[in-house]
Amino acid sequence: MSEITRADGRSVDQLRPVTIERGWSAQAEGSALISFGGTRVLCTASFTNGVPRWLTGKGKGWVTAEYAMLPRATNDRNNRESVKGKIGGRTHEISRLIGRALRAVVDTKALGENTIVIDCDVLQADGGTRTAAITGAYIALADAIEWGRRKKFIGQKSQVLLDSVAAVSVGIIDSEPMLDLAYVEDVRAETDMNVVVTGRGLFVEVQGTAEGAPFDKRELDALLELGLAGCATLRDIQTETLGAGE
Amino acid sequence: MSEITRADGRSVDQLRPVTIERGWSAQAEGSALISFGGTRVLCTASFTNGVPRWLTGKGKGWVTAEYAMLPRATNDRNNRESVKGKIGGRTHEISRLIGRALRAVVDTKALGENTIVIDCDVLQADGGTRTAAITGAYIALADAIEWGRRKKFIGQKSQVLLDSVAAVSVGIIDSEPMLDLAYVEDVRAETDMNVVVTGRGLFVEVQGTAEGAPFDKRELDALLELGLAGCATLRDIQTETLGAGE
Amino acid sequence: MSEITRADGRSVDQLRPVTIERGWSAQAEGSALISFGGTRVLCTASFTNGVPRWLTGKGKGWVTAEYAMLPRATNDRNNRESVKGKIGGRTHEISRLIGRALRAVVDTKALGENTIVIDCDVLQADGGTRTAAITGAYIALADAIEWGRRKKFIGQKSQVLLDSVAAVSVGIIDSEPMLDLAYVEDVRAETDMNVVVTGRGLFVEVQGTAEGAPFDKRELDALLELGLAGCATLRDIQTETLGAGE
Amino acid sequence: MSEITRADGRSVDQLRPVTIERGWSAQAEGSALISFGGTRVLCTASFTNGVPRWLTGKGKGWVTAEYAMLPRATNDRNNRESVKGKIGGRTHEISRLIGRALRAVVDTKALGENTIVIDCDVLQADGGTRTAAITGAYIALADAIEWGRRKKFIGQKSQVLLDSVAAVSVGIIDSEPMLDLAYVEDVRAETDMNVVVTGRGLFVEVQGTAEGAPFDKRELDALLELGLAGCATLRDIQTETLGAGE
Amino acid sequence: MSEITRADGRSVDQLRPVTIERGWSAQAEGSALISFGGTRVLCTASFTNGVPRWLTGKGKGWVTAEYAMLPRATNDRNNRESVKGKIGGRTHEISRLIGRALRAVVDTKALGENTIVIDCDVLQADGGTRTAAITGAYIALADAIEWGRRKKFIGQKSQVLLDSVAAVSVGIIDSEPMLDLAYVEDVRAETDMNVVVTGRGLFVEVQGTAEGAPFDKRELDALLELGLAGCATLRDIQTETLGAGE
Amino acid sequence: MSEITRADGRSVDQLRPVTIERGWSAQAEGSALISFGGTRVLCTASFTNGVPRWLTGKGKGWVTAEYAMLPRATNDRNNRESVKGKIGGRTHEISRLIGRALRAVVDTKALGENTIVIDCDVLQADGGTRTAAITGAYIALADAIEWGRRKKFIGQKSQVLLDSVAAVSVGIIDSEPMLDLAYVEDVRAETDMNVVVTGRGLFVEVQGTAEGAPFDKRELDALLELGLAGCATLRDIQTETLGAGE
Repeated sequence: MSEITRADGRSVDQLRPVTIERGWSAQAEGSALISFGGTRVLCTASFTNGVPRWLTGKGKGWVTAEYAMLPRATNDRNNRESVKGKIGGRTHEISRLIGRALRAVVDTKALGENTIVIDCDVLQADGGTRTAAITGAYIALADAIEWGRRKKFIGQKSQVLLDSVAAVSVGIIDSEPMLDLAYVEDVRAETDMNVVVTGRGLFVEVQGTAEGAPFDKRELDALLELGLAGCATLRDIQTETLGAGE
Repeated sequence: MSEITRADGRSVDQLRPVTIERGWSAQAEGSALISFGGTRVLCTASFTNGVPRWLTGKGKGWVTAEYAMLPRATNDRNNRESVKGKIGGRTHEISRLIGRALRAVVDTKALGENTIVIDCDVLQADGGTRTAAITGAYIALADAIEWGRRKKFIGQKSQVLLDSVAAVSVGIIDSEPMLDLAYVEDVRAETDMNVVVTGRGLFVEVQGTAEGAPFDKRELDALLELGLAGCATLRDIQTETLGAGE
Repeated sequence: MSEITRADGRSVDQLRPVTIERGWSAQAEGSALISFGGTRVLCTASFTNGVPRWLTGKGKGWVTAEYAMLPRATNDRNNRESVKGKIGGRTHEISRLIGRALRAVVDTKALGENTIVIDCDVLQADGGTRTAAITGAYIALADAIEWGRRKKFIGQKSQVLLDSVAAVSVGIIDSEPMLDLAYVEDVRAETDMNVVVTGRGLFVEVQGTAEGAPFDKRELDALLELGLAGCATLRDIQTETLGAGE
Repeated sequence: MSEITRADGRSVDQLRPVTIERGWSAQAEGSALISFGGTRVLCTASFTNGVPRWLTGKGKGWVTAEYAMLPRATNDRNNRESVKGKIGGRTHEISRLIGRALRAVVDTKALGENTIVIDCDVLQADGGTRTAAITGAYIALADAIEWGRRKKFIGQKSQVLLDSVAAVSVGIIDSEPMLDLAYVEDVRAETDMNVVVTGRGLFVEVQGTAEGAPFDKRELDALLELGLAGCATLRDIQTETLGAGE
Repeated sequence: MSEITRADGRSVDQLRPVTIERGWSAQAEGSALISFGGTRVLCTASFTNGVPRWLTGKGKGWVTAEYAMLPRATNDRNNRESVKGKIGGRTHEISRLIGRALRAVVDTKALGENTIVIDCDVLQADGGTRTAAITGAYIALADAIEWGRRKKFIGQKSQVLLDSVAAVSVGIIDSEPMLDLAYVEDVRAETDMNVVVTGRGLFVEVQGTAEGAPFDKRELDALLELGLAGCATLRDIQTETLGAGE
Repeated sequence: MSEITRADGRSVDQLRPVTIERGWSAQAEGSALISFGGTRVLCTASFTNGVPRWLTGKGKGWVTAEYAMLPRATNDRNNRESVKGKIGGRTHEISRLIGRALRAVVDTKALGENTIVIDCDVLQADGGTRTAAITGAYIALADAIEWGRRKKFIGQKSQVLLDSVAAVSVGIIDSEPMLDLAYVEDVRAETDMNVVVTGRGLFVEVQGTAEGAPFDKRELDALLELGLAGCATLRDIQTETLGAGE
């Protein structure tokens, strides 16, 4: 690892300060306000007994997610998608990513015919909003599942969660692989990658994009290694948060 | 005033606990996270030098507002308006109300050719979201104006704010006029009224609706009196908040 | 009251000429083409046996309203909302207001599981379109209820209408409270208020807005008094119209 | 011609009663409320000095039309296209037809760089709404052109209108060709045709559709003959209306 | 007929080369890639057992069509209607025309409670796209009906197709009636007509429009004659295509 | 590599038959109809001199892409996104992917202030539509650039293309990594990955998703190796196609 120090004083393999306010919402069955540095995402999980019509009678549950950003989460104000009357490609893409990440650790049979909708609303954005969203959504999901168990919608012994899941961004800046990019770093990155990793260290999703020059296998390997390590740290924070009791 | 005690222990003429976190957002030129009891609204003010095309060259500024609710701000999840592809009537109505309330205390000539967009996003809803939004939006607006002054977009001596503005709901429940209704009260109210009042105690907006039986002049007067008193208390909290320095 | 005479020769407490062509439409179960001076609104009531799914089986009916303006009802042509693909905030707001006003005088239990949709289409606009719409909609509603009774969808003795309802605008121009503002007056008004009042003289809705300077309690009282008197006159015209037989 | 008498007592080659209230609107530069029997269409013409950007600087004007139906113009209420958020195919199709019909008799060079938008709003529908719309729109158009001339937007000697234009429906019912179908006839017609004809008797548009059995050349000829005669009568009514002075 | 030769060497009463690739799609129950010269349209027929809810239980089937153009089918790229979020009037109009043309030759009782949706996607446009679409759609429809018969959704002896159907454009250019206009001819045509004709030579639809000067009965007759002859040739090509076995 | 044989007889590291019809469209500046087995995508490139407003005056060009599927490209018909009035998340996601892939090999400075829009329309879908689209889009792009050079919109010596680009899907089925999944394989894959690789063998994009069980680094490496080899073969086919002259 390099001796380079970043704008905010971190080493290249260091996460920004992570905080999770579990149970932030008085309304939702599970919720977490997560921060990765200046990025703050409110994740709520809404539990409904029953499933969408297309899934009825199959003995399986459904987990889905929606991601959005407040108009002034960013440095310049963006017009609301509700005002524009349509959802942008980026929003769609991230919502789908979060949903896939969560479903990868859920046994939908064990969940039974119940639906959990995760909303991830970015209150403040400073890079890595999708990875913070996934990491926080896992907390909200876990609590909503416990809520369903207490309410007897889920069997007392059902093992709904197969593993935990967290995500982090990695990227190459000035030829240097770095972990958890802040916004000022993200815009300069030649290659930008998001990795979604389970608590056991297996990949759920790997999305790497050359923003500048294409990258080779060696660079890819370096990024994956950083990402795995970052997700392991996030997993420990998640475990601690959930262990603390609500 | 009646001796009636409410579900949350308040007297009929008492506000819920009000908190204002001024400068909550690191991105916006002005911001406040305001709570009226369980209602929590994030208000941000975005300052732009320049005005929309239709106002160009008239030497006047523009203040407008958008209101929205996170899908799980409420007890049951609502579908996102961005997903539905259209904004509902209630959202439109409240956005327009907030905009009018703020413009009533702004001298747009003194503001100069600058635009301030206020976003009020309800993170958690427990009745009175529009009145909390107006009350918090004033703080964000005031700070955005100060920002514009520091950046020299507004003249050092321009008196942009003519007065402060706050709002509160009042209603009649079981024939009893009450101040600042929580959600469980709101759904039971026969008459529901929102009053928007300046710091000097003048009305900017009075909106009263009979949800149950129509009301007479005497009831209207009782509600207005409660509302004026509630807004005076809110004005004091606003003054204190702004006096504290950012 | 002041000695001021208005552009159209009226005194400050005088309505414009009101005409109601009851039964204008050969298709609708109830209808009225109402004029408040140059403002002309076609109100139709569509009666359907049955209620929306969310109300089924509750033994109650449903009354709702939609307001719209023809593109060239106004002095400058407005683009159609159907062409824009979305309904504006003002349209939404007025539709909701009309619906609330009518429901305030309807006993939905007595109506039984029937639905009445009121359409108020402004053919020509010269101020006060929403108040003319409410006043005319009451006539269309009353006739649709009678239609439902004749067709045996409503019991012969059911008292569906609890009272009549009418509405009028009032405003302060050059410090003078005035009744029933025409368009040229409306744009100059410092304070603009719409009052919806039942035949017995109770308020259903009070919506007052400071367009210019905020207003005090004394001004509010003057406006309310003018509005009550105006609605009483409109009630008499409604009574006469309905008494004449269709 | 056959001795058949129709439901409303007309002979097969007879129009329904036609009335035209010229100048119905106090706002529009030209307007007409036209009736073909129970079909009533309000046609307004909005004159604007200038043309859309894509036509600027070509020395030519623009005439376009929009058609719409009030929700309860018909026997059953239709949902508003503004509420549905999109315009239906039938509405689009008729708007385009009216626009083409009017442009066929306008010399856009003589019109100069001016725009006329014709709105045809069906207040009550009983068959033949598009043909009534075209026939009434011509009156509104002619008056808007005269308005433009009086306001000096159009040269005093410019011959903008090359001819008049009118339209009528024809159809085959029980093997019998008939003129100007009312709604009850229209739904029974095997073949349905609309013809748009200039004052000089030339075709602008012929649209014939087999709703039931396909038709042969002989039937087509009979329909065209009826349509030409009907349009000649409409032209005379138009001439008389315009001759009467506004 | 005139001795005039056209830009592409055709005589005035000559079709462009017509090719039909029957069964182009491996997915659809019926399909054809049809070319009228440079115009290429992919027609697919999707067969579904069952009918839309509004037709259920009436013992009848449903045939409908949708037309669209790829963005770069034309010389200049058009924005996608999916991106614009709404379908244009022209697209609606042509979709409706194709549907009517096909339904005119289908016995929906014999089809039984089955639905066939025809999609006509213009891959390359050089005039006459709607007429090529109808002509190719008939092939796709015929094959989908045979598919339904093989799958026993349609009775072995049911005569679903009453006749064949084809369409062609005709127009007047420099006073000369011409058959099957290519794009360069279409833009110059004074009158433009589309005729839809059954295999037995009866009209299903006649749509003639004066783009320039209005036309008289004699010109109309000349165009209809050309169109009937063109459709007879297309019918022979259709018969040959279907006779060849799939 | 395994001895497993697939449903279509391929070995696990074998592509489906690839065909490219270069210059398929007579209208577009560049085009290719590409097949990966039963997947057929029409790629067109539209060249416009000039750039969108937000890029004007920066001396750089713009390359973007839109992906769509015909409604019956798939085994079951999908509703058109134009009819639904909005674009789905999957469509957005793939359009963005194609655009990024192409921009990775374009020197926008060398392109100059020109815009190239690539449309990829799936005519028939059998798995791997996005990878076929990227591979075919490169051909269309290359030809559009040559067109721009011939028309002198691009300098004769400008090296606009920095490299070629191709893409292929890989996946793990029954624990076996396989290249270029057909639809029946894709739905069974536990892990699904798309790799976009330049002619020189560098990664532009790596998108791997666990559809079933999460995957480890060893599996990821096996997939990447297969993908690199597949893209190398596609690069050779592209080179041959472009070398053949148009």
